Amino acid sequence: MAPRYFVLSVDKAFAVLESFSGERPHLSATEVGRISGLNKATARRLLLTLSDLGYVEAPANGKYRLSPKILQLSRRYLDGLDIPALALPILQDLTRNTGEASNIAVADGKDVVYVARVSVPQRILSTNLDVGSRLPLHATSLGKVLLFGMTSKERQVRLGTPPWPGFTSRTRITWEMLEQDFRAIAVSGVSVADRELDEGLCSMAAPIRDHTGHIVAAINLSAHHLTMPAQTLFQAHRNALLNAAQSISQSLGWTLSEEESLRE
Amino acid sequence: MAPRYFVLSVDKAFAVLESFSGERPHLSATEVGRISGLNKATARRLLLTLSDLGYVEAPANGKYRLSPKILQLSRRYLDGLDIPALALPILQDLTRNTGEASNIAVADGKDVVYVARVSVPQRILSTNLDVGSRLPLHATSLGKVLLFGMTSKERQVRLGTPPWPGFTSRTRITWEMLEQDFRAIAVSGVSVADRELDEGLCSMAAPIRDHTGHIVAAINLSAHHLTMPAQTLFQAHRNALLNAAQSISQSLGWTLSEEESLRE
Repeated sequence: MAPRYFVLSVDKAFAVLESFSGERPHLSATEVGRISGLNKATARRLLLTLSDLGYVEAPANGKYRLSPKILQLSRRYLDGLDIPALALPILQDLTRNTGEASNIAVADGKDVVYVARVSVPQRILSTNLDVGSRLPLHATSLGKVLLFGMTSKERQVRLGTPPWPGFTSRTRITWEMLEQDFRAIAVSGVSVADRELDEGLCSMAAPIRDHTGHIVAAINLSAHHLTMPAQTLFQAHRNALLNAAQSISQSLGWTLSEEESLRE
Repeated sequence: MAPRYFVLSVDKAFAVLESFSGERPHLSATEVGRISGLNKATARRLLLTLSDLGYVEAPANGKYRLSPKILQLSRRYLDGLDIPALALPILQDLTRNTGEASNIAVADGKDVVYVARVSVPQRILSTNLDVGSRLPLHATSLGKVLLFGMTSKERQVRLGTPPWPGFTSRTRITWEMLEQDFRAIAVSGVSVADRELDEGLCSMAAPIRDHTGHIVAAINLSAHHLTMPAQTLFQAHRNALLNAAQSISQSLGWTLSEEESLRE
């Protein structure tokens, strides 16, 4: 049962907004009701309210859609985050110097969420990822670095009981597999995901720390296994990635410790 | 008075979300109440509800902040829009070939809202704009092209009674000034904004049309007046901009008319 403070119509309003997607950008009140599990009258009242507030548009054909005002909410979040604005020139340099796409993500629930991305326009083969995209923490280099920075209790709350979903035969689906990666991160400063989310994808991530040393975000390079296997990615670009991560961390007030600077 | 269907608590929930900004990323319930005009108890109930829904985070220090889940709403909008995904490679080429930042925007109320952007990383001097940023329709090249595509009634509803806010001495603040620009767009296919929003900024925009020929978005190049005055921008890059706009329009199903292809 919902707690006493819980405002049910707010829950319903977000269920209405969440009915829309890339596959279903235009929806009637009936369709919204079916997708969100609300009755049609409620769906319609909420759509009209959201339309008055400017977050939904009601075009002439009777199908509603999300309005560009929804982007403002993202901007409020991203503008308050500091990291993307600070980091974008550094990401752009990293991609220019390495030739691989670079990303910054934060943790949200069981997922990493991309908050900044620089892709490689020349590439025909590319991932369908952008700011706001979500991927599972346990199956990505970004996620493994973020998990590395958490207490074991926080990890347990986020990931729940293993085995977690496996996407390839290499996905880390147990605590034992993850712990092994954490030991590698402690030694090398970076996490590597070698075809763990997708058979064609390799990536390498490093932590971004705030002034207290806490890992608040992660930065990675992602590449295709055929052109850049994980081992090559690690050997060729680990230092560039660590330098980028450290530049961003320093701009967040973190001072490089002696231990870090001596890391091999 | 609000219409009968209006769900007041949904309005309040968005007022809570809109309390946060880049300048105020962390807020207590009291602060949210003060900014949104709600009483503290209501602000707190809504913050707790939004936190249960995952759109707000309540960190240890008692200050709430927006959560990365808010980015999902943007993705739902952008993924449904088609244009940014189709257009990004074209924007990237345009910026590479011209050396100037390029943007795509749609109209929302009195504003243009950026839905895709490719900046020039080498530039030290840059505008503080990104996806989700808003600028007034009447003061931007993007906005003037979007207004050009509207009926005069729609323009009146959006812009209201002139004079509109002037940002420089060149801002188009009356219908007469705008109509003059519309005639220039009809001839050249592009709109130019010459230091109309900011003394240092010039830009040139072209319309993006859907399969019906309706102008659904606009694409522009924006440059600094000192390095690239409006006249130079027009002479050097009009064709590149028109070609980019036409490529995107064609991928939306629009067929180039004879009139357009003969345009000088």
